Amino acid sequence: METHFQKELQGLKEDLLNMAALIEEAISTAVQSLVKRDSDLARRTFEGEDRINGMEIDIDDRCLKLLALRQPMAADLRFITSAMKIITDLERMGDQAVNIAERAISLIQEPLLKPYIDIPKMAEITQSMVKDVLDAFVNDDSKLARSVCERDDIVDGLNDQVFRELLTFMMSDPQTITRAVHLMIVSRCLERIGDHATNIAEDVIFMLDARVIKHHADVKEEGEEGNIS
Amino acid sequence: METHFQKELQGLKEDLLNMAALIEEAISTAVQSLVKRDSDLARRTFEGEDRINGMEIDIDDRCLKLLALRQPMAADLRFITSAMKIITDLERMGDQAVNIAERAISLIQEPLLKPYIDIPKMAEITQSMVKDVLDAFVNDDSKLARSVCERDDIVDGLNDQVFRELLTFMMSDPQTITRAVHLMIVSRCLERIGDHATNIAEDVIFMLDARVIKHHADVKEEGEEGNIS
Repeated sequence: METHFQKELQGLKEDLLNMAALIEEAISTAVQSLVKRDSDLARRTFEGEDRINGMEIDIDDRCLKLLALRQPMAADLRFITSAMKIITDLERMGDQAVNIAERAISLIQEPLLKPYIDIPKMAEITQSMVKDVLDAFVNDDSKLARSVCERDDIVDGLNDQVFRELLTFMMSDPQTITRAVHLMIVSRCLERIGDHATNIAEDVIFMLDARVIKHHADVKEEGEEGNIS
Repeated sequence: METHFQKELQGLKEDLLNMAALIEEAISTAVQSLVKRDSDLARRTFEGEDRINGMEIDIDDRCLKLLALRQPMAADLRFITSAMKIITDLERMGDQAVNIAERAISLIQEPLLKPYIDIPKMAEITQSMVKDVLDAFVNDDSKLARSVCERDDIVDGLNDQVFRELLTFMMSDPQTITRAVHLMIVSRCLERIGDHATNIAEDVIFMLDARVIKHHADVKEEGEEGNIS
């Protein structure tokens, strides 16, 4: 029975990694549809969403069955309940990718405002965050999880930069405002994907260290780890 | 033992309602700080966040202990795992309220762009959504949960309206752009609070009906409930 349960946990881990891979692909496809002005790629993002949603339901169901039938203790219990929270974050990242693809479709119909530099950079970093945070989760790697939290600061910085640049466009030429707002939303979607990855990373660190770095205030009171998250 | 477990579940329900009440208050305080141009109210929102974060950690911990020590089955199991997801949504609503208060502080320092009409309306609706969705959860009321999903459409519509109106301001006077972007973000924060409440409502309906109305595609395949969510 122990072996069977371990096998089920292993299957769960593999499917979490598969779901993360689908999210990476969704981010990539959505941002490529924007950069390459390719509405077929946008449509591929929409199609991918169904698979992501299906995986969320399937994994959630299996977690619940594991809790009910195996009655796991301690570390396994925390692992399974964390998995149930993680898939919610992953599914919402998928929603953000769909939002990006929707904006891409609007932007494709207008003249190009400017070449995209920071947005593909944000996409690349958030993809690496998604991959690494799931690797951290299944491999109990709190160091990798912490590096995900650190990368979120870079994404936030890029988002601020994109906002400032687009504000300048809007102010100098009102003709650009609609396109600039679309791009602000794309940037914010990527920033939110980074936030979701960071939420997962914080859960992983919490799970591994049984310490709460999630809420800055508490952390500061304890006078440690003040530089994280 | 049965009675003690029921008491623990009852305590959990009460604390979920208490946490929801804190969120309602945070939304109200944040939007009032904007409307009344009162930075003290903004600061009260920041202070409230610590209590909300503390409650999330406490409730999460108790849920985990209930799972480990009581090994609940079926409905109780789903209730506890749902509670663990719900508090994550509530905590993130608190983050959105803090975002609103931060924007309020920036906006207070600038001349008033326009009287706020739709934003307080959105705040009022999202507050009612937070209250009702938690009531629906603890009282097994799927009808109330569905009404929360319906209200989300109103919030989304108001958000679109605010966006369009602010775009008009920005286009006719570039001086208004910075303030208009702050207000767009406030509106989007409220829209996201509505999304979180809807996520919870969908979980409640899922839990009660053991049906997935969460993902439109699946729903359409089944050919029912197409008007929900």
